[in-house]
Amino acid sequence: MAYALAYVIFFYYFCTLIWISMAKTEISTLGEFGLIKQLTNDIKPLQPSTKKGVGDDCAVMDFGNVQSDKGQCTKDARVLMTTDMLLEGIHFNLEYVPLKYLGYKAAVVNFSDIYAMNGTPTQITVSLGISKRFSVEDIEMLYSGIRLACERYNVDIVGGDTCSSMTGLTISITCLGVAADKDIVYRNGAKLNDLICVSGNLGTAYMGLQLLEREKLVAESYPNGSTPAEALRFEGREYLLERQLKPEARRDMIESLRKAGIKPTAMMDISDGLSSELMHICSQSGVGCCIYEDKLPIDYQAAALAEEMNLNIVTCALNGGEDYELLFTCSLDDYEKLIPIDDLYIIGHITKQEYGCNLIGRNGEELALKAQGWNAFGN
Amino acid sequence: MAYALAYVIFFYYFCTLIWISMAKTEISTLGEFGLIKQLTNDIKPLQPSTKKGVGDDCAVMDFGNVQSDKGQCTKDARVLMTTDMLLEGIHFNLEYVPLKYLGYKAAVVNFSDIYAMNGTPTQITVSLGISKRFSVEDIEMLYSGIRLACERYNVDIVGGDTCSSMTGLTISITCLGVAADKDIVYRNGAKLNDLICVSGNLGTAYMGLQLLEREKLVAESYPNGSTPAEALRFEGREYLLERQLKPEARRDMIESLRKAGIKPTAMMDISDGLSSELMHICSQSGVGCCIYEDKLPIDYQAAALAEEMNLNIVTCALNGGEDYELLFTCSLDDYEKLIPIDDLYIIGHITKQEYGCNLIGRNGEELALKAQGWNAFGN
Repeated sequence: MAYALAYVIFFYYFCTLIWISMAKTEISTLGEFGLIKQLTNDIKPLQPSTKKGVGDDCAVMDFGNVQSDKGQCTKDARVLMTTDMLLEGIHFNLEYVPLKYLGYKAAVVNFSDIYAMNGTPTQITVSLGISKRFSVEDIEMLYSGIRLACERYNVDIVGGDTCSSMTGLTISITCLGVAADKDIVYRNGAKLNDLICVSGNLGTAYMGLQLLEREKLVAESYPNGSTPAEALRFEGREYLLERQLKPEARRDMIESLRKAGIKPTAMMDISDGLSSELMHICSQSGVGCCIYEDKLPIDYQAAALAEEMNLNIVTCALNGGEDYELLFTCSLDDYEKLIPIDDLYIIGHITKQEYGCNLIGRNGEELALKAQGWNAFGN
Repeated sequence: MAYALAYVIFFYYFCTLIWISMAKTEISTLGEFGLIKQLTNDIKPLQPSTKKGVGDDCAVMDFGNVQSDKGQCTKDARVLMTTDMLLEGIHFNLEYVPLKYLGYKAAVVNFSDIYAMNGTPTQITVSLGISKRFSVEDIEMLYSGIRLACERYNVDIVGGDTCSSMTGLTISITCLGVAADKDIVYRNGAKLNDLICVSGNLGTAYMGLQLLEREKLVAESYPNGSTPAEALRFEGREYLLERQLKPEARRDMIESLRKAGIKPTAMMDISDGLSSELMHICSQSGVGCCIYEDKLPIDYQAAALAEEMNLNIVTCALNGGEDYELLFTCSLDDYEKLIPIDDLYIIGHITKQEYGCNLIGRNGEELALKAQGWNAFGN
């Protein structure tokens, strides 16, 4: 082993140049999901406690009994685990994202993954990589957002790692949650004729981002700090900003579904865009889908801004990411129970796999869905 | 809320310059531990399942019964959680760290934290931030190291996140483990007269790093790729390289202690240097300590290289980080059982707090220990 290691070191010293010039596959050719698949597709669980590994919103572990959040024990309880990494310049721009909101969002996107399994988030660890540009006060501000999210969602910060970075800010949060085994909803349970539902509205966070980017350019056109408040067109659009900067996880929808006695057949949260997520559910469930343009829930502020910016709001609703709404499928039998639920929209139904994934336009035209959403390696 | 948010945005656009010029506290004035303390010192657990939060090698959760790794259920079982972030340019230098070894080390340092609580690691999530400089083959190489470590330590990769980064490579791994409540060893249990023990030897990983840095300079003095193999002085020093590049977690020591029927009173792994870790145990346990220079376990290759490089090997053993050996305290009653254990060294004993933390030199002189180890914000 030791000699092999010395050999590797020699190799590194001598072959750096050759190495660099060798034919290599760019990660963007595979994309995020392709890369993950390539790295993890033949992983076999070694631990009996591992019930579900890579491939859903969360991993699922069976460590035996789990207390539910009301303090009662259920025998089939499971531990859920999810993780998200946010990198400056890729996932956020500190020119217009306040650190407190960033912290809030970084925590909430993890909670959203736990709710998307129909679970309850319980603990997080927070790892931060911090460049010299940041002060103690900055990091306190970031942390205050994380703590606020934890208080609101009843989650404990139980650990983490804090270190300096060469450039920028890195935030990596891992979240644990609990759920009874019988309650867990995976991505692969959608059945023929199931109803496709979403919470809230779509494309709004994306339009919030467009607004921030546009006004950043306006602000930059003035000399430093001299931008008059009236030059920035945020008024009446606060909801778009809030959806982009301070999203909430849909705990309320999970609670509404529970109260109504509905267990979705498949579920995930919409972080990369509706099209992309719906195609995940369909491919993992071995089904197709049909959704209707006129059923897509769209916020009027988002629609108005899209009009103003010459963007197609339907495209934004299909492919704009970061809404953190829930996408789920329910049995047709649950139709009557679904209708009274506030902020829930039925946008289509599950079809046979051969049909593919399609959008029916307002004029009845059929368009194949494409996963054009957020690609972590596409930019 | 929405208006408050718009206000914050305005604030960001207008006050960037003022913000930058405001008096701010540099993080290096607090250091890593001071910053963590400031951010987390008033956190109160909200979840009944949280038994131990920030402040030890791992967080401890009580989700009810936990299967031990032999498939049996014990009623007092706990889930452990730890996380580590590694950043290029801070924690590793890819000029001489092969990606496969880096992956191996990134996983093992997490396992080490679980063993340091006397637990068994079971699952990890792996988050990677990857710049365009890396190819699919590079990341496969990194991942192969992570997977090798997981196979050797019987741990499952159950999830993660993969995204592009602006610069360099970021690795964030979170590890779960299990342990019976009665077996868990915290940092705060050291008692007066307890024996202070370490596994393996100290300062070796640090000397491995010094060797790599020295030979990197040698290699750089030749035109690209033309460094003759005989110019690099690695021969006979493979063990130092291995300790730096491919450390192991001391599962074997945990097993030896169990077999001998010994439960340490306090334990942690040595990642930042013996002095720093010992001072953590003492301050958290409310005790002092006395260790002996001539009892410190030092590898002969490390000592020879220190001599050659004009370094004090005792200073390296006290303050050189990344050994990932175990530091633990045991009751005097266990003395007879400790003696036969291979690769275990008794280096001193616990004293009253008033005595402080001291090293007794070879000539009997007493020196106060200082936490001069790795400071994540000191560089």
